[in-house]
Amino acid sequence: MAKKASSSSRTAPPEAPAAGGADFVWRRKDLVGLDVLSAGEIVHILDTAESFKEVSTRSIKKVPALRGKVVALMFFEDSTRTRMSFELAASRLSADTINFTAKGSSVAKGETTLDTIRNIEAMGVDIFIVRHNQSGAPHLLARQVRSSIVNAGDGQHEHPTQALLDIFTIRQRLGRLEGLKVAIVGDIAHSRVARSNILGLRKLGAEVVVVGPPTLVPSAIMPMGCSISHSLDDVLGEVDVVNMLRIQFERFSNAGMPGFPSVREYHKLYGLTTERLQRAKKNVLVMHPGPINRGVEITSQVADGPNSCILQQVTNGLAIRMAVLYLVSQGSE
Amino acid sequence: MAKKASSSSRTAPPEAPAAGGADFVWRRKDLVGLDVLSAGEIVHILDTAESFKEVSTRSIKKVPALRGKVVALMFFEDSTRTRMSFELAASRLSADTINFTAKGSSVAKGETTLDTIRNIEAMGVDIFIVRHNQSGAPHLLARQVRSSIVNAGDGQHEHPTQALLDIFTIRQRLGRLEGLKVAIVGDIAHSRVARSNILGLRKLGAEVVVVGPPTLVPSAIMPMGCSISHSLDDVLGEVDVVNMLRIQFERFSNAGMPGFPSVREYHKLYGLTTERLQRAKKNVLVMHPGPINRGVEITSQVADGPNSCILQQVTNGLAIRMAVLYLVSQGSE
Amino acid sequence: MAKKASSSSRTAPPEAPAAGGADFVWRRKDLVGLDVLSAGEIVHILDTAESFKEVSTRSIKKVPALRGKVVALMFFEDSTRTRMSFELAASRLSADTINFTAKGSSVAKGETTLDTIRNIEAMGVDIFIVRHNQSGAPHLLARQVRSSIVNAGDGQHEHPTQALLDIFTIRQRLGRLEGLKVAIVGDIAHSRVARSNILGLRKLGAEVVVVGPPTLVPSAIMPMGCSISHSLDDVLGEVDVVNMLRIQFERFSNAGMPGFPSVREYHKLYGLTTERLQRAKKNVLVMHPGPINRGVEITSQVADGPNSCILQQVTNGLAIRMAVLYLVSQGSE
Repeated sequence: MAKKASSSSRTAPPEAPAAGGADFVWRRKDLVGLDVLSAGEIVHILDTAESFKEVSTRSIKKVPALRGKVVALMFFEDSTRTRMSFELAASRLSADTINFTAKGSSVAKGETTLDTIRNIEAMGVDIFIVRHNQSGAPHLLARQVRSSIVNAGDGQHEHPTQALLDIFTIRQRLGRLEGLKVAIVGDIAHSRVARSNILGLRKLGAEVVVVGPPTLVPSAIMPMGCSISHSLDDVLGEVDVVNMLRIQFERFSNAGMPGFPSVREYHKLYGLTTERLQRAKKNVLVMHPGPINRGVEITSQVADGPNSCILQQVTNGLAIRMAVLYLVSQGSE
Repeated sequence: MAKKASSSSRTAPPEAPAAGGADFVWRRKDLVGLDVLSAGEIVHILDTAESFKEVSTRSIKKVPALRGKVVALMFFEDSTRTRMSFELAASRLSADTINFTAKGSSVAKGETTLDTIRNIEAMGVDIFIVRHNQSGAPHLLARQVRSSIVNAGDGQHEHPTQALLDIFTIRQRLGRLEGLKVAIVGDIAHSRVARSNILGLRKLGAEVVVVGPPTLVPSAIMPMGCSISHSLDDVLGEVDVVNMLRIQFERFSNAGMPGFPSVREYHKLYGLTTERLQRAKKNVLVMHPGPINRGVEITSQVADGPNSCILQQVTNGLAIRMAVLYLVSQGSE
Repeated sequence: MAKKASSSSRTAPPEAPAAGGADFVWRRKDLVGLDVLSAGEIVHILDTAESFKEVSTRSIKKVPALRGKVVALMFFEDSTRTRMSFELAASRLSADTINFTAKGSSVAKGETTLDTIRNIEAMGVDIFIVRHNQSGAPHLLARQVRSSIVNAGDGQHEHPTQALLDIFTIRQRLGRLEGLKVAIVGDIAHSRVARSNILGLRKLGAEVVVVGPPTLVPSAIMPMGCSISHSLDDVLGEVDVVNMLRIQFERFSNAGMPGFPSVREYHKLYGLTTERLQRAKKNVLVMHPGPINRGVEITSQVADGPNSCILQQVTNGLAIRMAVLYLVSQGSE
């Protein structure tokens, strides 16, 4: 579980970040999911991110840690903020970056993902950031190439850096993870953010309750070690953190999404409003992975209010991604 | 009005550009439009651009002025040359750049522009270059975020850096602005380039006449301090500069554009040809913001002829944009 | 023909690559095709690439050769790997890069290619990498602009850097070019890769036989100095290298491509399989420009087998493109 001892080594300069503990050596060349990480490894990433956080506050926001290394951003699925966050993290480490987009590419020419990656690897790429619509794609690639693979979201499987930045933000705001109770609210069934959060939070000793309409909260998720509720009002009083997932309207057909209530109905039952927030603990932390649908899963008052740490999550995302890029580059050597 | 005194301070190296005058301190964190700038501020930008112009002639075309800063290019509306010009200007100042395009982005996921900008700001972006189809969008953003906002064209409102580079080029070629007479020819009603030019030229003491068919030259523009003509032939003999706007065919429907004559008719009345140019002053300066429709608003002979400064405008655009990026980065501190 | 003497000067550091021979001075500001290059110039590019190859094996994969220079990637036609290879080559030389894509650009606004290039040149671009669907476009541009033009594929005409990297790989693997026999297999009629390979290989003293169905192997190609065969089985025993072209399915209509047999038929007659490879010389070199259609022109077993140098070709592409960028930047001075 989360060891506080590790924080003692956070004083090393970002040019040579401290280990999670004096005895900790990072060995992984990839970050494919939180499923395979130990609690110690997760804490080591958080601690390394802590070291890098300071860099973003400097006037010259750069360290030479990855100078001369090449980071390729392979987004087989569209993304704005995750791509930009990784690209800025790589720049801040002085890496060269290169963008690949699936449109009009060799993918359209019928090449397999593995061939695409292997070819670009042959051009001297050191780290691939991969977003893919197929669950498990990054795991497969990681086994087949020598370069590092960082999962930036795969199908409905995992989105490890999002969970890491969420967990980092909770630790930063509430001082710990062990013993906390975290609600994750929304379309759990299709959410890779939910899956990675559950995995990470459980490993660090937090309790997780997933909340949403029965059609979107499958009981199959219970073996992951979380409890289930269909009433936000019921759980709101007991939790320390409430993480509001985004309703992914872009995945809806014209007829809506099977199992999804009307937007109005959803907002009435699961939208986080100022009124509803009054049932919560006074210092409850309100999170959202973005982009926000204001007035649907969360109202503007709550999103911009004092309990919200939404923009802080985004800022912490840079530090987490710098840490991940730095660590996998060491692990692959 | 344009003070020549300021030119005495142009000798400082680009690493630390000179002020517009010994007593001038730039304070603005944003450049949203020429409407809010004083004549002194406009001259200060021109003078700063003068200092930076030399950088582009060096073998190593870089200065470290913005090293470690991040410039995000937020083009909610397509653009090639303006985006590239800003991106190269930022590189030349050693800033890191990151591109955002509206397609396939969080915008498509229903996020507001303000939320998009705020999120990317939270990643540590220092300056946003914003092109947007809604007039006033950059002004709104500038009030809401701490980072700098530079308007790269908003709706039919303003395109300040285009006007600044036009004005810079006139000053460079004709030695002054005060007392000059400038014709702006074309679809004035829908042109943000025209609006920003009128505002800037008037503030620096030039006279402006807008020229075009009555349907494209609204009398509502007269309060901006310019005169109106519907005959290019009538005004050509009196002006020092003729700025030919582009016919924006991409905004036409299949049925053409309401109020726009046929292309043939337009060319006959308002196209700048060698014959027509003979009615003009011998050294009249011919400008065009590009891209050119050869044979429509201007013939190839004129566009590539000795009176044309079209490519010089493009070159000066780099220096203007370097100056603007440099100044707003200082203003925001 | 290929002079071995030149290899004696390969010891200079990449920061200042050696000449192809003590007496060799590179003068060209452009690389538009192998048609205009002498054998000596081709060898000089290969030797320069040899010097740069080592850079890609360093921990910090960068040299300052083009620091402060700007390389614009002008892809009027889509590409993934060629664009990325050039972009990485430019970064490795410390150049600044900027991407232009035809979509949503001034091209869509009706601007000519020459005006687009001239405008971007006016922004201070030093080298343009141009891919264009019109044969001869780079040649035309090279005559009209002062910046360097590097052809990254024009219509069905040439793709010089692909041929150079192919030739470099053959020399690396087989130690020489003179006297070798190379088969190029596939849709010769529409292949710029085939054309450039034939030109380069012939100049360096290799023999070339083009192989494919009569509809795809026009007899008009014979004056280029190669022989023609319609049976892969017939030639396989005599050649040292077999370069399998990609079947460009993306150029097919729903009804297929006129003159192209069914995929099944094509694979049966011209697909490189393990069985077929047994008719070849033991050390025959198997090449493919990528992306591969596995199971069509080549099986996975062959593509990933010991005779294949497909990924090596990709790796060598970086070195060739670094060499070309470096040389044209010198030539333009």
